[in-house]
Amino acid sequence: MKRIALGVQYNGADWQGYQVQPHGLTVQDKLEQAIAQFACVHIGTTCAGRTDAGVHALGQVVHFDTDVQREMHAWVRGINAFLPDSIGVRWAKELHDVVPYGEPRFDADHDFHARFSARSRTYHYLLYNHAVRAPLLAGRAGFTHRPLDVERMRKAVQPLLGKHDFSAFRAAGCQAKTPVKDMYAINIERHGDMILFTLRASAFLHHMVRNIVGALIYVGQGREGTQWLGELLDGRDRTRAAPTFMPDGLYLAQIEYDAKWALPVETPRILPAF
Amino acid sequence: MKRIALGVQYNGADWQGYQVQPHGLTVQDKLEQAIAQFACVHIGTTCAGRTDAGVHALGQVVHFDTDVQREMHAWVRGINAFLPDSIGVRWAKELHDVVPYGEPRFDADHDFHARFSARSRTYHYLLYNHAVRAPLLAGRAGFTHRPLDVERMRKAVQPLLGKHDFSAFRAAGCQAKTPVKDMYAINIERHGDMILFTLRASAFLHHMVRNIVGALIYVGQGREGTQWLGELLDGRDRTRAAPTFMPDGLYLAQIEYDAKWALPVETPRILPAF
Repeated sequence: MKRIALGVQYNGADWQGYQVQPHGLTVQDKLEQAIAQFACVHIGTTCAGRTDAGVHALGQVVHFDTDVQREMHAWVRGINAFLPDSIGVRWAKELHDVVPYGEPRFDADHDFHARFSARSRTYHYLLYNHAVRAPLLAGRAGFTHRPLDVERMRKAVQPLLGKHDFSAFRAAGCQAKTPVKDMYAINIERHGDMILFTLRASAFLHHMVRNIVGALIYVGQGREGTQWLGELLDGRDRTRAAPTFMPDGLYLAQIEYDAKWALPVETPRILPAF
Repeated sequence: MKRIALGVQYNGADWQGYQVQPHGLTVQDKLEQAIAQFACVHIGTTCAGRTDAGVHALGQVVHFDTDVQREMHAWVRGINAFLPDSIGVRWAKELHDVVPYGEPRFDADHDFHARFSARSRTYHYLLYNHAVRAPLLAGRAGFTHRPLDVERMRKAVQPLLGKHDFSAFRAAGCQAKTPVKDMYAINIERHGDMILFTLRASAFLHHMVRNIVGALIYVGQGREGTQWLGELLDGRDRTRAAPTFMPDGLYLAQIEYDAKWALPVETPRILPAF
């Protein structure tokens, strides 16, 4: 049995999140249906990071195990033929043979796993900061009409870098084993009326990026001081932070793996558009 | 009575074209409904250029006449409050008093008219040229997987510049009075996997941009020679050209007016994204 990884992109605005649901209106439902139609057999899949309703992916990674023999480009084209336009496979890569007993025998040195092998995750949050909303960015970017001071926001995120308990930015229903994550980098760039936040961490708690962006908007507006995110972090109390910001601008941008897996890396650009 | 101009943007993927239809699923239907809700009276509108189903606008201009007194920012915010997310007013500008008898007395020197006062129109066509489709560009960009040679396409458009009978690129149902239009500029730029076509002309026939782009793709693929568009133009026969290309990548980018009207000009960038 072979393990195959797929690079998957989707427009989250059309779907009720990534993970399989009884109503079937999720990315994973559509992906597994398309794989079954192409491979003529149901194949379960495992993703690197589940995303919520409305959240997009440019670099989701999914793996599955199969005895079905196909060329890699045939997996890409074949699955895409059965997917709706707003979901697509970008690449496929065969990784190795899999012991058929599955994950209990998972060996991090020898077995690739979309989630367990991931070293870090990168998210983008794209925010439109203008007096008037832009229809072509609806569902594609967050929106706030009050001017934001990017320098203040850059200053405010400094305490979040490094290993911390991120409970202050964690959703109530979060299923992560631990709230301690390692934040490797946070970049905030302004391109005209667009602001692009890029966060890379060992992993993210549920709603963590949207909660951080929500708090940063308060700081950028001058409603809270630049020390506020550090105080929130130390307080570990979700109820003190800003509301969870809208999903529209959130993109799972990339999952970083050890170079030995030699997965294709796309560097999708999210540039200010329209 | 005052004449007011609006700058309007929309995502055409959600609508059955610009112009009012009995089914009500058009941009103009939604815009006039929103104006009526805000102004508490029905007000007819006139646009600079009708767009087809699936075609977007970054710089549509619409005018209407009214006795209703509102600040310009109130028109923008008030109408937007009643519009769906995929349609929006970007600016409003009061132009002048209108003789209530209307267009029969239209005087080009003294009266602004969204359509008749327009000097030229600019359209963008955004094309994704990659082996695999991109889900986040669905409905936003045309797509062709075969590699295109931009230099060949640039060469091929040269005969189209200037004043010509564009019947070869005209849809069967086109209602324009004359097929003669003046093509001021055609630019074709590659940004990575994206190709951006920008066409500026006195006016465009129905399907003209999509028919030109369709023909250019044949040239870019090497399926036709670089002299082909000139031959098609001279032949004035629509049936010899390539099929009308998909609407997804077409954007009404800007309507150019005399500077005396001092309309706000947005310079929306369509940059390669995702």
